[in-house]
Amino acid sequence: MSYELWYWLGIPGRGEFVRLALEAAGLPYADKGCKQGAEALMQDLSGRGGIAPFAPPYLVDRDGPGGGELAIGQVAHILTYLAEKHGFNGPDPLTNLKLIQLQLDISDMVAEVHATHHPLANGLYYADQKEAAARRAQEFRSNRIPKFLGHFERALAAGGGPFMAGEAWSHVDTSLFQLLAGLDYAFPNRMAGLAGTYPALERMRRAVEALPGIAAYLASDRRQPFNEDGIFRHYPELDLAAEQAAN
Amino acid sequence: MSYELWYWLGIPGRGEFVRLALEAAGLPYADKGCKQGAEALMQDLSGRGGIAPFAPPYLVDRDGPGGGELAIGQVAHILTYLAEKHGFNGPDPLTNLKLIQLQLDISDMVAEVHATHHPLANGLYYADQKEAAARRAQEFRSNRIPKFLGHFERALAAGGGPFMAGEAWSHVDTSLFQLLAGLDYAFPNRMAGLAGTYPALERMRRAVEALPGIAAYLASDRRQPFNEDGIFRHYPELDLAAEQAAN
Repeated sequence: MSYELWYWLGIPGRGEFVRLALEAAGLPYADKGCKQGAEALMQDLSGRGGIAPFAPPYLVDRDGPGGGELAIGQVAHILTYLAEKHGFNGPDPLTNLKLIQLQLDISDMVAEVHATHHPLANGLYYADQKEAAARRAQEFRSNRIPKFLGHFERALAAGGGPFMAGEAWSHVDTSLFQLLAGLDYAFPNRMAGLAGTYPALERMRRAVEALPGIAAYLASDRRQPFNEDGIFRHYPELDLAAEQAAN
Repeated sequence: MSYELWYWLGIPGRGEFVRLALEAAGLPYADKGCKQGAEALMQDLSGRGGIAPFAPPYLVDRDGPGGGELAIGQVAHILTYLAEKHGFNGPDPLTNLKLIQLQLDISDMVAEVHATHHPLANGLYYADQKEAAARRAQEFRSNRIPKFLGHFERALAAGGGPFMAGEAWSHVDTSLFQLLAGLDYAFPNRMAGLAGTYPALERMRRAVEALPGIAAYLASDRRQPFNEDGIFRHYPELDLAAEQAAN
């Protein structure tokens, strides 16, 4: 098997964005770390010399460009690499460049989701930064969710759909699918309040669910549930319903 | 002039990473927004349909792939695009992929720099989140600066230098140059405490300064000073000297 995906055991987290694209494209991969745990992951990562990944998830391709072994981190970058190699990007170079930008916009929103429960320090527990988290989550619910989702909705609606690049799915669609699933998990009140606001996103989401590779994956035990160790966490106190009336 | 760089007036910010690469490569560009102010920028941005940039900085290339007009956001993406088009990347595809990852690692660190003074909300003033900022900055100084700079140092030291991809500069070098300049401005005590710890980064930095395009740019009035409206801000209370002895 030429691909290895290295990520933390027990959370979908950022690794899930890569996993979904691999599953949608029907590409076989060894899910490392997820099987072997954090110690194996850190051992593999720390043993990589030269320009190494900064953090999980990272992808190892034993058949990289020029036949060399490639190990690269950064979700958006991994997805762009796979999409170019296996053709799940757009119909032309101009569109492909715009899809990469959208994938990076998604990464930014994911980082902001993480900051809602860890605004002060990754090294602190949520319980030790709850007050700051409440303030950060308020900003995220009120301003950032509509700003990001409005951006993705406009981009989708400008095309013919159902996917971002038209009739064929791209790496951006599987990532948007996961982003919406995560937001629904973490902020159910807020997302319920926005129901109906983003019809193009909803249509895209149903189209991703219906992709054969995704449908099979979602029905399998490889799909991990969200939980409170991951990026998307459901803490009811971070999902107050106050903004619903205003939007 | 085929390139337009759109960014906020009056701060180097994220736009400076793009500007440095354009200057180092000797590519002519129109510095928009920076000349015309925020209103012109928001008008230009909001008038862009389809898959538009999410936020400044963004690059407009009237001679994009296929002859179409391209407008893309995301610093790392803009730099990768320019580097591929004009050849200031690495000597081979494997290296180029690793350089893109490093550019994204730099973007992550820049976002964490911004979070040191805006941990709770972009929409609040620093003065309204000073306590949270103090805690976030402590984490950044103690843990994140050494983690990121150690990562870049190891990557650089693994090659022959002086630049990340060897004897020729790439988009990663100009960005690391700016990152180090910004950290020195924002956290002078902390960075003084780390003096001598990153010899490969220091060597690269001097080599970037000596590039003809960069030397001319730094001596010109196009180079903007850092200030307390940008990403890298010097607030003495966020740069306490406590960690110096420990590292």
